[in-house]
Amino acid sequence: MDKIKIVEVKEDILLRNSTIGNELREELKKQGIFLLNVMSSPGSGKTTLLVNLINKLKDKYNIGVIEADLDSDVDAYTIKEKTGVRVMQMHTGGACHLTAQMVRDTINEFDLKNLDLVILENVGNLVCPAEFDTGSHANMVLLSVPEGDDKPLKYPLMFEVASFVVITKKDVAPVFDFDFDRVKDNIHLRNKKAEVFVTSALNDINVDEVANHLTKLLNNF
Amino acid sequence: MDKIKIVEVKEDILLRNSTIGNELREELKKQGIFLLNVMSSPGSGKTTLLVNLINKLKDKYNIGVIEADLDSDVDAYTIKEKTGVRVMQMHTGGACHLTAQMVRDTINEFDLKNLDLVILENVGNLVCPAEFDTGSHANMVLLSVPEGDDKPLKYPLMFEVASFVVITKKDVAPVFDFDFDRVKDNIHLRNKKAEVFVTSALNDINVDEVANHLTKLLNNF
Repeated sequence: MDKIKIVEVKEDILLRNSTIGNELREELKKQGIFLLNVMSSPGSGKTTLLVNLINKLKDKYNIGVIEADLDSDVDAYTIKEKTGVRVMQMHTGGACHLTAQMVRDTINEFDLKNLDLVILENVGNLVCPAEFDTGSHANMVLLSVPEGDDKPLKYPLMFEVASFVVITKKDVAPVFDFDFDRVKDNIHLRNKKAEVFVTSALNDINVDEVANHLTKLLNNF
Repeated sequence: MDKIKIVEVKEDILLRNSTIGNELREELKKQGIFLLNVMSSPGSGKTTLLVNLINKLKDKYNIGVIEADLDSDVDAYTIKEKTGVRVMQMHTGGACHLTAQMVRDTINEFDLKNLDLVILENVGNLVCPAEFDTGSHANMVLLSVPEGDDKPLKYPLMFEVASFVVITKKDVAPVFDFDFDRVKDNIHLRNKKAEVFVTSALNDINVDEVANHLTKLLNNF
């Protein structure tokens, strides 16, 4: 087979916002508020996992949720209705990612002194959100079985910035060609130390493990 | 239930490149080359659909494929191996979308006088690629069953810029809560005239319809 020609095209459209991210991270830390940034492709099951997780954690922690979307407020109402915790809808006006300043502006709308954990559901996008520090203390990256086990190879940065990875929709694995060992190898190629959890939020498979991991992070905060 | 507070956060990070897009569209038209831009989320089945489609069309048309990725060349080799048509891998260097200039630079690497159809597999991303005119003559947008039928509500621009929409992975519908009528309604809320094809490329369901639609577009070019 002929070698395929590779054309490198680079474009510098990425803004630096790490200074604000670092400031926000420290401000929140001083107030004892842990910020968890949740990232994935569209439709990989962020909201379903969060509903299940929040219901496991809400008796122990005061939780606030920020739902970021280009448009619509479907997910915000789902979370509020199914968990009862405080939810804020953020609209990005078409932007593909969140900056630390956007997060700071929104988080200040909460009554911060009554919060232990703020969960930020980022825009569904496996590319841009990874570039922008949100000021979070941990990044939870989801990858769903239907998306395929090769995604860490094709979207390297997202898996590099992950604090831990949650594989979702394990229940549908029988109808997809998805190799759990291979996906772990692919993730660890990008990020040697990332723990990987294999879950099905709908069937409550291994969501306790994710909740325990978060509890550990909060206890050591 | 309390009304959820909505915080609007807008950021102007989008560049205009429609002038170059229009120029490229005209240049290609003069040479009788139809440029099809293919967009979707990561893992929605662009490559699998393209392999099937190209094998249906390659005896009638001279086809070239541009594979755009942040990194890796998995898909380019898959297309080349399974169809035999000319394939060019473009690396975006981390960028989340393609500009018309990137496409022009890459397309000029082909021997253009021997081409009827260039298929551009855009970066897997339901947000950014929709903002940037690639110079294409049509945009084919894919949405896979596992992603959910609400995506046109949450990613409106992608469905607004679609010339037609292909629902993929119909074969796994029994294990997902996906309503084909609802997704069509949601698409038509964004884009009244977009034709919608419901397919499974792996099982060759309705891919002929998509091939016929493309043939019609090429005949009327």
